[in-house]
Amino acid sequence: MKKSSVGIIDPWGSTEIESYERLLEEFGIQPLEGVADKLPHKPSFIRRKIIFGHRDFERIVDAINNKQPFAVMSGIKPSGPLHIGHILTIREMIFFQKMGGTVFYCIADIEAYEDNGIPFEESEQIAVDNLADALALGLDPARAYIYRQSKENDVKDLAFIFARSVTLSTIEAIYGARHMGLYMSALVQAGDILLPQLKRFGGPKPTLVPVGIDQDPHIRLCRDLAHKFREKYGFVLPSATYHKIIRGLDGSPKMSKRNPMSYFTLTEDVESISYKLRNAFTGGRPTAKEQKELGGEPERCPIFDLYKFFFIEDDEKLLEIYMKCRNGETLCGEDKAFAVEVVTSFIKEHQRRKHSLIDKSRAILGLD
Amino acid sequence: MKKSSVGIIDPWGSTEIESYERLLEEFGIQPLEGVADKLPHKPSFIRRKIIFGHRDFERIVDAINNKQPFAVMSGIKPSGPLHIGHILTIREMIFFQKMGGTVFYCIADIEAYEDNGIPFEESEQIAVDNLADALALGLDPARAYIYRQSKENDVKDLAFIFARSVTLSTIEAIYGARHMGLYMSALVQAGDILLPQLKRFGGPKPTLVPVGIDQDPHIRLCRDLAHKFREKYGFVLPSATYHKIIRGLDGSPKMSKRNPMSYFTLTEDVESISYKLRNAFTGGRPTAKEQKELGGEPERCPIFDLYKFFFIEDDEKLLEIYMKCRNGETLCGEDKAFAVEVVTSFIKEHQRRKHSLIDKSRAILGLD
Repeated sequence: MKKSSVGIIDPWGSTEIESYERLLEEFGIQPLEGVADKLPHKPSFIRRKIIFGHRDFERIVDAINNKQPFAVMSGIKPSGPLHIGHILTIREMIFFQKMGGTVFYCIADIEAYEDNGIPFEESEQIAVDNLADALALGLDPARAYIYRQSKENDVKDLAFIFARSVTLSTIEAIYGARHMGLYMSALVQAGDILLPQLKRFGGPKPTLVPVGIDQDPHIRLCRDLAHKFREKYGFVLPSATYHKIIRGLDGSPKMSKRNPMSYFTLTEDVESISYKLRNAFTGGRPTAKEQKELGGEPERCPIFDLYKFFFIEDDEKLLEIYMKCRNGETLCGEDKAFAVEVVTSFIKEHQRRKHSLIDKSRAILGLD
Repeated sequence: MKKSSVGIIDPWGSTEIESYERLLEEFGIQPLEGVADKLPHKPSFIRRKIIFGHRDFERIVDAINNKQPFAVMSGIKPSGPLHIGHILTIREMIFFQKMGGTVFYCIADIEAYEDNGIPFEESEQIAVDNLADALALGLDPARAYIYRQSKENDVKDLAFIFARSVTLSTIEAIYGARHMGLYMSALVQAGDILLPQLKRFGGPKPTLVPVGIDQDPHIRLCRDLAHKFREKYGFVLPSATYHKIIRGLDGSPKMSKRNPMSYFTLTEDVESISYKLRNAFTGGRPTAKEQKELGGEPERCPIFDLYKFFFIEDDEKLLEIYMKCRNGETLCGEDKAFAVEVVTSFIKEHQRRKHSLIDKSRAILGLD
């Protein structure tokens, strides 16, 4: 019996939650519930269990409540325009910045080169666009250290220092049989995460890395390295929160560049976005008749995911949408028209703000 | 029938030359003979076939004869005091510097860390000592770029750039299943070899890397990378010369840190060196009687190797020692007393000169 067809109404749950719960047990990730209650304020992505698990998040909550210094580390691989899914991490980063954290925002241009073959000359232009998105979403550059990996000698040097403790079999177990560049960029990433704890940034401190659950192998490698080099640097093991991965618009488990119909980007033309939304997979029934009788299944609907993850901040409003779908009151066509309106008005406003921030982004990256 | 017991007298040959000749065929290394004749001057290590093979050495000979710019790249891993075997590469480097080359001398402190676990704070002190040796041997710092890998961002960045083209299986085939640090230091070494060809040093140019034959895997990896990144950087494939490896004083094929009786260092007490020489393995016969009858075997004698490689510059003098050993005229005790005198007088003079160059060495490494 599927969860969506039983009586319990939980707009924040989904059929996938069970597999996430398995992940918690299997990898020793802690559930977020409980510890999150100690936060002075819970944003929608916490209220709605989009962030569902963590490692050592207590440390960050304590730092927030005791007004102690802490860092929030995140980054973006400048391999193309940001897609809608990326804004979750950016919003998490901004939330923890508002809670008192210093943001470390890494433009992972080494990874873009190693993984995607994008030369630095090209990725720096992409980075300008990506960073402008983050600024438009509310990242405060005055409380953020924003850098490109390729220009940040400390993170490269940390990679060289860590490398000695990483055997071939460890790295192969995490990343499979790849080329040296990919492995080196994984070590650089560990350097990125521990950069905030170097002396030049005030030394050891709690550091939160908000990531998608698919990034956990990186986190584990980095925590292992932080442990091994604890004596030399005094590292505090970095903390992590894990969020769910938003579904693709085509109903696939993940937005993927392989299918442009599965996602839209923040720079995309609103007509194109509208088209993709109108043609998205939904949690609807085969016929309108069935849907009126049985109700829709918002738990498996990418359009509802968009509301839940990004576009409907008010919980009561979201619950109303959820109920009207489940009881067959709203049909998918009508709902999609609403989604098009909500999403395109957000995107238009975002693009307007972003446009005015391109020069600032260039300046921050030293590209004037 | 062993070569040493036939009529052909070749003080420059040895029983091992056959295995070196096999190496030439197997790996496509060219014999040095012929091309070396075009050099304006042949030092003892070329006359005596200590350098026995090469890759693309013609390019260097042409540059010398046409007074074109070329680089000589070498380095030292600062993991301890230099042993006597190290001076061969240093003398090669100095010879090619005198022939018009610009020396690039790398203090491989990243390798010392990755391979031997020596922290940079420690290896920089070792490097001061190592570099003072090279200066005392005649390296002209005014025509040399001397640097530590850990401080030279360009070589680290080249490692990151090259990494993408090096598969796990390639690196594993060359170095075996090791840790990531060793692999990364191999890529940095490729960066060292190609550093002289970057724009900041005047762009692409012939570059000679004089090495022991055991270093050929590095050379092949680097030439392969130079080829792959030819379009981006205009690299000329680096040239290499290959020298034989001097035997251990204990008669083993190679001086080894595992047995301190197999070598002596340039900083060692002369009493200790004398002791090691007096107790060295030789090409002598079991009894004085037999030796007088059959003659010694200088071809398999580490003491004769010392003369041939380092301490007897005059060919006629070397031939005389060789003949007197072969015809049973000199016995090992007498010869060892001579070796002690020759070696210790060299070492005393070297240590005196070196002592006066320590401050200069510190200054070159920026450690004032």
